[in-house]
Amino acid sequence: MNLEWMGYAAAVCTASSFIPQAIHTLKTKDTRAISLSMYIIFNLGIMFWLGYGLYLNDLAIILANAVTGMFSLTVLIAKLKNDVWNKRSAE
Amino acid sequence: MNLEWMGYAAAVCTASSFIPQAIHTLKTKDTRAISLSMYIIFNLGIMFWLGYGLYLNDLAIILANAVTGMFSLTVLIAKLKNDVWNKRSAE
Repeated sequence: MNLEWMGYAAAVCTASSFIPQAIHTLKTKDTRAISLSMYIIFNLGIMFWLGYGLYLNDLAIILANAVTGMFSLTVLIAKLKNDVWNKRSAE
Repeated sequence: MNLEWMGYAAAVCTASSFIPQAIHTLKTKDTRAISLSMYIIFNLGIMFWLGYGLYLNDLAIILANAVTGMFSLTVLIAKLKNDVWNKRSAE
């Protein structure tokens, strides 16, 4: 039985569930409720999954983590911009 | 080059980044800021990843999604309990 579709279904579900957070962050620029350490670890994990997907040559894993990474990196950059860079420039 | 470790590093990073949310939800029982539809789609995705990991017989994918699913299902159940079941019993 070919269950390749399951990887793509999984990719669509988990990647798309990160869209609302990215849109919310881009719209409001509000990142106070977001944990910086959690997002650093999560983005690191996504990069490892991307590398692992390339190693396995598995398109579902590669696509899922490339797309999820786009969203989660957007949120991480907004958080860094608010918390680290803006704080420094205000000093 | 054996990059199997990358899958385990990825699994640890992404799974552990869901711990703080689960702990926060269990402690406060506050799920107002959590999107029900997002958590349903996400948990569905995790189930698909688990199935895909079993299909590929890939231990890193299986472990990552079994652990992540434990945390994300905890949050989803708390959300359902607050929003659906408690609302019904109050009527």
